[in-house]
Amino acid sequence: MTRVFNFSAGPAVLPEAVLERARDELLDWHGHGLSVMEMSHRGKDFVGIAEKAEADLRRLLDVPADYRVLFVQGGASQQFAMVPLNLLPEGGSADYLDTGTWSDKAIEEAARFGRVNVVASSRATHYTGIPPRAAWRLDPDAAYVHYTPNETIVGVEFHEPPDVGGRPLVADMSSTILSRPIDVSRFGLIYAGAQKNIGPAGLTLVIVREDLLGRARAACPTMLDYAVFARNGSMYNTPPTFGWYLAGLIFEWLLAQGGLPAMAERNARKARKLYAYIDASGFYVNPVEVASRSWMNVPFRLADESLDARFLQGAQAAGLHNLAGHRIVGGMRASLYNAMPEAGVDALIAYMRDFAQRHG
Amino acid sequence: MTRVFNFSAGPAVLPEAVLERARDELLDWHGHGLSVMEMSHRGKDFVGIAEKAEADLRRLLDVPADYRVLFVQGGASQQFAMVPLNLLPEGGSADYLDTGTWSDKAIEEAARFGRVNVVASSRATHYTGIPPRAAWRLDPDAAYVHYTPNETIVGVEFHEPPDVGGRPLVADMSSTILSRPIDVSRFGLIYAGAQKNIGPAGLTLVIVREDLLGRARAACPTMLDYAVFARNGSMYNTPPTFGWYLAGLIFEWLLAQGGLPAMAERNARKARKLYAYIDASGFYVNPVEVASRSWMNVPFRLADESLDARFLQGAQAAGLHNLAGHRIVGGMRASLYNAMPEAGVDALIAYMRDFAQRHG
Repeated sequence: MTRVFNFSAGPAVLPEAVLERARDELLDWHGHGLSVMEMSHRGKDFVGIAEKAEADLRRLLDVPADYRVLFVQGGASQQFAMVPLNLLPEGGSADYLDTGTWSDKAIEEAARFGRVNVVASSRATHYTGIPPRAAWRLDPDAAYVHYTPNETIVGVEFHEPPDVGGRPLVADMSSTILSRPIDVSRFGLIYAGAQKNIGPAGLTLVIVREDLLGRARAACPTMLDYAVFARNGSMYNTPPTFGWYLAGLIFEWLLAQGGLPAMAERNARKARKLYAYIDASGFYVNPVEVASRSWMNVPFRLADESLDARFLQGAQAAGLHNLAGHRIVGGMRASLYNAMPEAGVDALIAYMRDFAQRHG
Repeated sequence: MTRVFNFSAGPAVLPEAVLERARDELLDWHGHGLSVMEMSHRGKDFVGIAEKAEADLRRLLDVPADYRVLFVQGGASQQFAMVPLNLLPEGGSADYLDTGTWSDKAIEEAARFGRVNVVASSRATHYTGIPPRAAWRLDPDAAYVHYTPNETIVGVEFHEPPDVGGRPLVADMSSTILSRPIDVSRFGLIYAGAQKNIGPAGLTLVIVREDLLGRARAACPTMLDYAVFARNGSMYNTPPTFGWYLAGLIFEWLLAQGGLPAMAERNARKARKLYAYIDASGFYVNPVEVASRSWMNVPFRLADESLDARFLQGAQAAGLHNLAGHRIVGGMRASLYNAMPEAGVDALIAYMRDFAQRHG
């Protein structure tokens, strides 16, 4: 078995040690004679797995006691509706910041349920940066302020949460959560699809300040009401048990790596290396303003677009997979989530250097 | 490794051969150097897995060409809202049959979105049978008729779909799908949580007649609109890829077993044996009317309730796990889904016989 370096933007590479453990336990968890997938979610074995996962996540992110952790389904796209259905009162308004495709999708869905005020947009500059904070037109009456800390397609990232006064700050952290420490108390609600830094697709994590629960609209489906999840320990109905278990293994792995401070150091180093090479190469280009470059998703273009296919083929042959950019922007993209080892970045840079020498 | 016989009502036992294959492929799918969990859902490898799973399911159930197969999230509980949000027009009415806890929950959720006409209920007889078809008060203007072909808690099952005239018949098949052949053309829409006969929790299957698509209410969240799933091959956003893959392995396994006619024969034999022993025992009781007894979930009570705990302990020691009844009814319950081997039923009967002899 030779594992490749997988630069997919999501579903993405998982830590090899976690996959090995899942494999070893797949038919017989801890000598209990059955798979985690076969356990009743209400039995004490699975409840133990679920509670440990939450406790480890709380430790990793230092989640304050007045925040609830929910394990839900439907991905970030379902959150685009759940956020307004739970937090935007009928007739109210919410503030959204537009920094790319994913902000855009969140805005479009929220607008179906109420008034959306786009406080600022970087669309005119092709989403290559973050609109300066001073230019944001926040509504003093907004129910919340929504933003996308990391835009996976263009590779733009907020390195600090913005100051939005006292309003609840809501963040789609799908592609940046667990990549570094964050101050959870700065947020009203954080959501994240699992398939980048948390675990397999099909699990979505929500961290929500308790006082924001219980505000769902009358017409909110039961399974889209955060309070239902909070009241039932995320087991109002059968949760995605295997995804929850794998997320728990990843949380354990992160703690063993030294937690989020260690991941931040490693992730910053990986990204710095790749951007430094791109900028110095004279062959590859990343157009994002330096202060807003993503640690997680590094898009780049070749000097000559007609070489794209050859670049990707050669990369694949060298064991560097899934480097094609998102279909709506083209070019290349290297996603460097937690589970991408530094050796993968080194191998990518070596390949890029060699390719540039041969075709530059 | 000793695998136990797992009688859990769900998440439930999976075929050992499927788990073995998933284990062997977990870090390196078909020599591609990565796990299915790590594949982009839009890459050709995963698309191939997804398409094969759908094709095999269509073959198993002989799904007509004018039906769409959707792979969604949220479980049957989310379907309780999706069905009315998609099929019940504002101001319209829907017919629901009440045969147990799960029908009840479907009714309660639908009533939040429109008028619900309960056509008949077996509540007064503790859900131990199915109200006779002649007594159903169907509304000629109902948008659809909803029923629950198998009630997992009380163990009541419809062995044939009811005739409801031309109205679209909607069925929650979570705990009976794939246990026998069905005539899909009798239904408008079928939904099923995966965690009994399809695969792991976190995946939900929907089979819907094409003409019922595109009727969602304006206020239906995008991720709850069947048409969005149909238009996008169930990949509007990232689907639960690993669950989809495992479902595909199970569909292959079912085809290798001889398909649904073979499963029906095996399931009928398993259930028949257990009911025959219960009825003859003079020690155990199943209260359900004989014609409506479930093949999938067999609840039973001991003559003396105070022996319940001892029965369960002894069963566990004999490798017969998860036999406690649902918390709202108590007693015992043996779930005999497709993946429960006949040897498991034989071992259960042998244990029950021995226990009755020692305590009768």
